[in-house]
Amino acid sequence: MKKIGIIGFGVVGSGVYEIIRKNKDILTKNAGEEIDVKRILDIRDFSAHEEAHLFTKDFNDLVGDSEIDIVVETMGGIKFAYEYTKALLSSGKSVVTSNKELVAAHGDEFFRIAKEKNVRYLYEASVGGGIPIIRPLANDAAANDICEVSGILNGTTNYILTKMFKENESFEGALKTAQELGYAEKDPTADVDGFDACRKISILMSLVTGKKIPSEMVHIAGIRTITAEDVTYAAAIGYTIKLIGCGFTKEGMVNASVEPMLIPESCPLSTVEDVFNSVMVKGNMVDTLMFYGRGAGKLPTASAVVGDVVDIVRSGEYNPYFSWEESDRESFIPYEDVEAKFFVRIEESQIPVAREVFGDREFIKGVNDYGFVTDEITIGKLAADIEKIGGVINKIRLYK
Amino acid sequence: MKKIGIIGFGVVGSGVYEIIRKNKDILTKNAGEEIDVKRILDIRDFSAHEEAHLFTKDFNDLVGDSEIDIVVETMGGIKFAYEYTKALLSSGKSVVTSNKELVAAHGDEFFRIAKEKNVRYLYEASVGGGIPIIRPLANDAAANDICEVSGILNGTTNYILTKMFKENESFEGALKTAQELGYAEKDPTADVDGFDACRKISILMSLVTGKKIPSEMVHIAGIRTITAEDVTYAAAIGYTIKLIGCGFTKEGMVNASVEPMLIPESCPLSTVEDVFNSVMVKGNMVDTLMFYGRGAGKLPTASAVVGDVVDIVRSGEYNPYFSWEESDRESFIPYEDVEAKFFVRIEESQIPVAREVFGDREFIKGVNDYGFVTDEITIGKLAADIEKIGGVINKIRLYK
Repeated sequence: MKKIGIIGFGVVGSGVYEIIRKNKDILTKNAGEEIDVKRILDIRDFSAHEEAHLFTKDFNDLVGDSEIDIVVETMGGIKFAYEYTKALLSSGKSVVTSNKELVAAHGDEFFRIAKEKNVRYLYEASVGGGIPIIRPLANDAAANDICEVSGILNGTTNYILTKMFKENESFEGALKTAQELGYAEKDPTADVDGFDACRKISILMSLVTGKKIPSEMVHIAGIRTITAEDVTYAAAIGYTIKLIGCGFTKEGMVNASVEPMLIPESCPLSTVEDVFNSVMVKGNMVDTLMFYGRGAGKLPTASAVVGDVVDIVRSGEYNPYFSWEESDRESFIPYEDVEAKFFVRIEESQIPVAREVFGDREFIKGVNDYGFVTDEITIGKLAADIEKIGGVINKIRLYK
Repeated sequence: MKKIGIIGFGVVGSGVYEIIRKNKDILTKNAGEEIDVKRILDIRDFSAHEEAHLFTKDFNDLVGDSEIDIVVETMGGIKFAYEYTKALLSSGKSVVTSNKELVAAHGDEFFRIAKEKNVRYLYEASVGGGIPIIRPLANDAAANDICEVSGILNGTTNYILTKMFKENESFEGALKTAQELGYAEKDPTADVDGFDACRKISILMSLVTGKKIPSEMVHIAGIRTITAEDVTYAAAIGYTIKLIGCGFTKEGMVNASVEPMLIPESCPLSTVEDVFNSVMVKGNMVDTLMFYGRGAGKLPTASAVVGDVVDIVRSGEYNPYFSWEESDRESFIPYEDVEAKFFVRIEESQIPVAREVFGDREFIKGVNDYGFVTDEITIGKLAADIEKIGGVINKIRLYK
């Protein structure tokens, strides 16, 4: 019998509890022994819960309980989660988390402690909800030099963009619907401005490179700038628009970014709709892999957490292949040096000068203006060229 | 230093060798120690190979070499591969294979020996080429009752169907192109008649249920019956056609089948084109997951083989979560009892009687006949209803 603790009985934490109760026999079979919840820490009142005796408000009831080997941290946020995780690992307990903010910010420190204490710190649920992506990168792709990881890492923005494309809603209208359905928070900044996706691409690229990718090294642009007219243009040229977290390595250097991108309809990412997420991985031997599923939600996310718990029950010793070290700031490729094609929107009057600067292209007529696709150029060069033609209405990077 | 042997230096075997040479440093990092090829068994002449000294024609040079802990079996076929695998496992060596025919037919026996000898028998490359699917089912989905696995498991037929849809080729024409490009064999039976996909769905469902699914319990239909007219109908109703290997469990019972199915354009499987493969997994907690990538080819398949080798270098002890036991023939759901919707093509003259038997439906006009979609009915009931209306031109199951 393996006894676990849960910190934070919100959406994901209560999902973990539910899976452990409902799939008890399957878990016993898959873990090799029974898994039970011994203690749940939450500052709220759960005295009416059918297992009210499991709840405590005192962290010492978990960290001090020698029967508890594994603790699930699903409280979110940094402050308390950081202190608790550090204390738990230091006391020789393994920790499983869905807290992407914490993993992105302090993963490197936690892995050091986990190594020292020969325990594990796992975080499958922190990226892509229920989608297996951490373990495939750490294990399955082990024969490869992974040169690129990219994908739809935020369900809220994907829901909004899907609404804009399928039902011709404006950004504001789609955001309102998402808020009404509980897919977006009252303050939607973390999602629509790309911060949530930034944490996730940070985690993925930290795992791939073995060095922390700090959020401040990630170029971040959200989807507020995407208008109904961009949607019309995209559809006209056979593309859709998705918020893409993207990271790549090149000769030992690394770049990571979050921004809306045009995705060709032939690319599997284009069919990823609503709150679904999807991650593409490119390896030098396996070529392209894609992982798809529910990027959020109570049970899918809790499924990933419990998968990590099962992994630790099977083998609780420190595993170096899930970790990274502190950041190496010398190894970052500046965003300006990244090469891509762009879709650029300009006024009709700019066409002659655009033809001079960008070469002879096909200028597509939109509602009030014109759009064209550039050659592959560095983002720095694009900025300079845009200045030459006196600014543009909008520009969107093409996914490759 | 971990020394491995390779049996069969064909497409995949030579790919394994290539990866071990080219990605040497990455493999050392990911496995925790260096991996080297010590001996290659192949009856052909490789005396001109740059490492000719590695080759042997004598199996005893591998099985009798105590320095070799892991042997890669990429020779294919049953007869010799079966004897070799048994001898290797019995002598305490772990075996990694890409041989789906062998895994489907004799996996249960090999797992028994592997358990006895405390070694491993791994087969990630046997399904979906480079796509991680075995390890995700064995590890990542551990929190779930997996109720369904389905997908595009054969690249050759997917290439042919893609050609038929995108370029309006006939089945015969597309097959010829596939043969010219080396995607289809001279005798294409194993691919186009569904036997290859059958082995793969057998393996996946054996892993999921823990009991062998023998090929003869799998309903198999290939793609020879799919005509240009079926393609036209499918496109008209917003579907594409894919050869789908499909297995599901229900109250402890299991069914597996291979047949062409209509896939709605909104389903991610519909964008899986050419030789790519994709596997959908449904779990009771995580809902739908999808895994996508190159289902065949030298380096992608070898990447999966080498991934298994790395896994064994990290931990070479028997792992029960990758195994299944012998078949339990009491637990199979007959194909006739499977429920699905079907697209049915009939003559115009049959419409009145079809309306009586199948209810009032929308009859879509094709080139020479009419088509309609049934309600969800059992396949047995469909057969009886078809008899009532005096036969049909064609019927294709809808994917759900």
